[in-house]
Amino acid sequence: MRTSQFFFTTLKEAPADAEVVSQKLMLRAGYIKRSAAGIYTWMPLGLRVLRKVENIVREEMNAAGALELLMPAVQPFELWEESGRGPAYGPELLRFKDRHQRDFVIGPTHEEVITDVVRRDVKSYRQLPIHLYQIQTKFRDEIRPRFGVMRGREFLMKDGYSFHTSFDDLVREYGNMYATYSRIFTRLGLKFRAVAADTGAIGGDGSHEFHVLADSGEDDIAFCPDSDYAANVELAEAVAPATPRAAAGKALEKIATPGKMACADVATFLAIEPKQIVKSIAVVAEREDGDKQFALLLLRADHELNEIKAAKIPTLGAFRFASDSEVQEYLGCVPGYIGPVGVDAGKVTVFADRTVAAMSDFVCGANEAGFHLSGVNFGRDLPEPAVFDIRNVVAGDPSPDGKGVLGICRGIEVGHIFQLRSKYAKALNCAFLDENGKSQIMEMGCYGIGVSRIVGAAIEQGNDDKGIILPPTIAPFAVCIVPMGYHKSEAVKAAADQLYADLKKLGIDVVLDDRNERPGVMFADMELIGIPHRVVIGERGLKDGQFEYKGRTEAEATMVAQGEIVGLLQGKLCGA
Amino acid sequence: MRTSQFFFTTLKEAPADAEVVSQKLMLRAGYIKRSAAGIYTWMPLGLRVLRKVENIVREEMNAAGALELLMPAVQPFELWEESGRGPAYGPELLRFKDRHQRDFVIGPTHEEVITDVVRRDVKSYRQLPIHLYQIQTKFRDEIRPRFGVMRGREFLMKDGYSFHTSFDDLVREYGNMYATYSRIFTRLGLKFRAVAADTGAIGGDGSHEFHVLADSGEDDIAFCPDSDYAANVELAEAVAPATPRAAAGKALEKIATPGKMACADVATFLAIEPKQIVKSIAVVAEREDGDKQFALLLLRADHELNEIKAAKIPTLGAFRFASDSEVQEYLGCVPGYIGPVGVDAGKVTVFADRTVAAMSDFVCGANEAGFHLSGVNFGRDLPEPAVFDIRNVVAGDPSPDGKGVLGICRGIEVGHIFQLRSKYAKALNCAFLDENGKSQIMEMGCYGIGVSRIVGAAIEQGNDDKGIILPPTIAPFAVCIVPMGYHKSEAVKAAADQLYADLKKLGIDVVLDDRNERPGVMFADMELIGIPHRVVIGERGLKDGQFEYKGRTEAEATMVAQGEIVGLLQGKLCGA
Repeated sequence: MRTSQFFFTTLKEAPADAEVVSQKLMLRAGYIKRSAAGIYTWMPLGLRVLRKVENIVREEMNAAGALELLMPAVQPFELWEESGRGPAYGPELLRFKDRHQRDFVIGPTHEEVITDVVRRDVKSYRQLPIHLYQIQTKFRDEIRPRFGVMRGREFLMKDGYSFHTSFDDLVREYGNMYATYSRIFTRLGLKFRAVAADTGAIGGDGSHEFHVLADSGEDDIAFCPDSDYAANVELAEAVAPATPRAAAGKALEKIATPGKMACADVATFLAIEPKQIVKSIAVVAEREDGDKQFALLLLRADHELNEIKAAKIPTLGAFRFASDSEVQEYLGCVPGYIGPVGVDAGKVTVFADRTVAAMSDFVCGANEAGFHLSGVNFGRDLPEPAVFDIRNVVAGDPSPDGKGVLGICRGIEVGHIFQLRSKYAKALNCAFLDENGKSQIMEMGCYGIGVSRIVGAAIEQGNDDKGIILPPTIAPFAVCIVPMGYHKSEAVKAAADQLYADLKKLGIDVVLDDRNERPGVMFADMELIGIPHRVVIGERGLKDGQFEYKGRTEAEATMVAQGEIVGLLQGKLCGA
Repeated sequence: MRTSQFFFTTLKEAPADAEVVSQKLMLRAGYIKRSAAGIYTWMPLGLRVLRKVENIVREEMNAAGALELLMPAVQPFELWEESGRGPAYGPELLRFKDRHQRDFVIGPTHEEVITDVVRRDVKSYRQLPIHLYQIQTKFRDEIRPRFGVMRGREFLMKDGYSFHTSFDDLVREYGNMYATYSRIFTRLGLKFRAVAADTGAIGGDGSHEFHVLADSGEDDIAFCPDSDYAANVELAEAVAPATPRAAAGKALEKIATPGKMACADVATFLAIEPKQIVKSIAVVAEREDGDKQFALLLLRADHELNEIKAAKIPTLGAFRFASDSEVQEYLGCVPGYIGPVGVDAGKVTVFADRTVAAMSDFVCGANEAGFHLSGVNFGRDLPEPAVFDIRNVVAGDPSPDGKGVLGICRGIEVGHIFQLRSKYAKALNCAFLDENGKSQIMEMGCYGIGVSRIVGAAIEQGNDDKGIILPPTIAPFAVCIVPMGYHKSEAVKAAADQLYADLKKLGIDVVLDDRNERPGVMFADMELIGIPHRVVIGERGLKDGQFEYKGRTEAEATMVAQGEIVGLLQGKLCGA
């Protein structure tokens, strides 16, 4: 492509309402143009990137044995009534009546339609498994569209659905998709993590999210830099400390801590670290028969309670925080000074976090206003507690897979794989006849990738003050040729045209900037739009038989002999 | 692809409500599956065809210098108010309010959106011309969706829009698109015609429709088999007869024709051909000042009046048919016996069709109930008339380009190119600064192709009692290998697998039918779904080192030496 034949529309400034860097840069680079809130036109430059992402997704899905089809964007609402999702979906679901007053929706997702297709066409176990996917424009009427293409209302999505005779076979395909998604994001050249979206390792009754790592992400992810472990912070397991509890070394002592109710204040007052303090969180679980269970959840003062985990304690279950009067009633003390020592075991249950269970000589509330206890030890001063993982992980925690130490980063969700099991198949009676001629409901998986969101996420991950940085696999062009004086120097023009023709012949996606612009303008544009490799051709270099090469992220350009430039680029693109 | 890994869902019978052959065959072959009226899922097999069509369109559009972009399907209604089209469009336009009660439409076409994009980005003549196109799913709420994908509500369309500094440049691009569309339909392997959709040759202020020729088409097209002339029947020029009017040979005679008012009855009664009779059609043009012009339009009895052409007679203009009382008032006669002889030239104007003007010794009404005149001759019995082309062409008429004789066929419109001029650019103030810094409104063209409709039209053109016949360029697979006993004979399996691998390596789109089905089932399926080339591999043939080859439209199979089959297929696909 020659820039003179392209439609470049770069902007010096991003519109004032652009919020995140990818949105600003995509608008400035002329990738997209806003049509309405959350609705964009993909301009030719941006569409090149979108299509490259789309093609990588398609190639890998096909290689994995999935079959592409194309379902209608407009779906009969009846199917949504049949699945029971219609009323539940809320105003994000765009409903309308056609001219004959029949109800339709613009599909935000296609579980109903694909299940309807499969139940009509698949009768026998011999036709299974089947994995069908599409790459399609979808519409979700987000209440607050934002972040450009990352949270738009109209967006391009790959959604796949697999159907199976057994859970085992679903698990097999789930693993296949886990591997396929990993290949896709690797080929896209992105730093990413597959994040357990619930308790599950692969094979559990579970789901995984695929996140592109970027500071602007909306999700906190705990990950291990030395392995592929990653999980949402809320779901990552906080493993027990490797070193066992030290023996008691101090005597139990009651200390006056007047007015020091917050752990941080106690730590400062006593000149100790928060790591030596145990905080007690009073909660109440109300039983159906009206009984109340009052419990103390013990956490190290610098840790945070994870309510999802705590609610999974079998002997506790769903709980709420205790009121001040309940604290007074069960512990005879105002909040701020409560603790596990000396409580009535018949009335108060104590659950300790794994980290707390490994502590000795710690400080906690004395159950007496204005006092704390120090030198507290389990087994000596109070009974051994029931121990559970009830906190959020923090950076520095051991990785649950035993392969290193966790870090915390932010991620942008760009993919999600999910074991649906029989949720939709049951509601829509999607059944098959098994080997014995018996009708069975199918097992189902679904697998999504936000194709247009990937473009935004890739730019969130790759950018600098000059503009967009993209891997050559998805950059709008892999190489740009910037001639100095294309319209003035015959030699420059000839060399530029020749290199352009040579690279094109090799199938390299090259753009020749043949506009009659100042070098500064051309350099700035090529950097802004994110071209990974730049070759500058000028009269001075030509005299020595040299071109100037610069990688998008390199600080300095280097001179390269004319005869070596093609090989250099091939090497860089091949290695990419 | 192996059929065992594909999702084949052929049907013995088409659903009862399928109307046309392409719809029946696409449903039977498992190309599509109905979701709602006019709304279909493209199953994997059909999607292969759709994508091949789409890719040919894309490649040729890119080669022609157009740039692909992707506009949103959901458009703000404001733009439709600005262009003035919103209220006019009617219920085919799907409107809805988003959750914030803002008005949107699901775009049936994108003139407004593209004009909005261009007016915001293009400021100078230096940025023009520009041609932007997209390939996108569109929705039109047809009142009576029918014919499967040929008149569906949701469909895939290529729509392109070009912008120019001058009409001359628009005409240049219009010619470029005329040639590009011709290349596209040629590559698609379809019999087609570019049809002048109004008076226009290319370069006029005009438009052309591209029709795939098929008996089931909804439009009548006049075409010349010996040239590329084609036009809608209503618009095709009926040229004057090549042979001049013969000299008068008979005397004027008044003949009693009691009760014979229709031309056919007169012909039978007089034992002459309708070609010897001139019918007179009485019309009235009412002027703004209240004046009435009464006129007789003379046509040969076997020809049909073309009202569009007649209304273009400068001295007539818009007209209506005369009432019986007006006929009585101006001609003193009841309808059925009226004619041009002896009328009052001050009150009645006579316009003759070109064919009539070349007639002599003809029969016409005598302006007296129960009587006709025979042996009538212009110049002798009545004045020479004003002569115009006012009839529809018929098969056998000379082609207006002088290159042969017209035929009439039916066509399915699959493309349309149009010189929009400044209609939208003016309404949306899409302007540029010219060389002199003066603001000018752009000239605009638009160019559409019904991508999904092409699939239906191609099947309307190509089918037989066995199923679909498609050219290899767009067939779901170009070649099928049908082994006899793949699961029983090692030799057959080995030969089939080897040929499959060889063809794949050559980039030939081949399907291997490795299902454990009877040969008859496999043959029928491969014929039904439209595979152009079939290779059968059986033990008997293998013993002689031979495969069986059969083209989809060939009556008989031929035996081919194993070593020659690849070359044979290459030759057939290369020539395609």
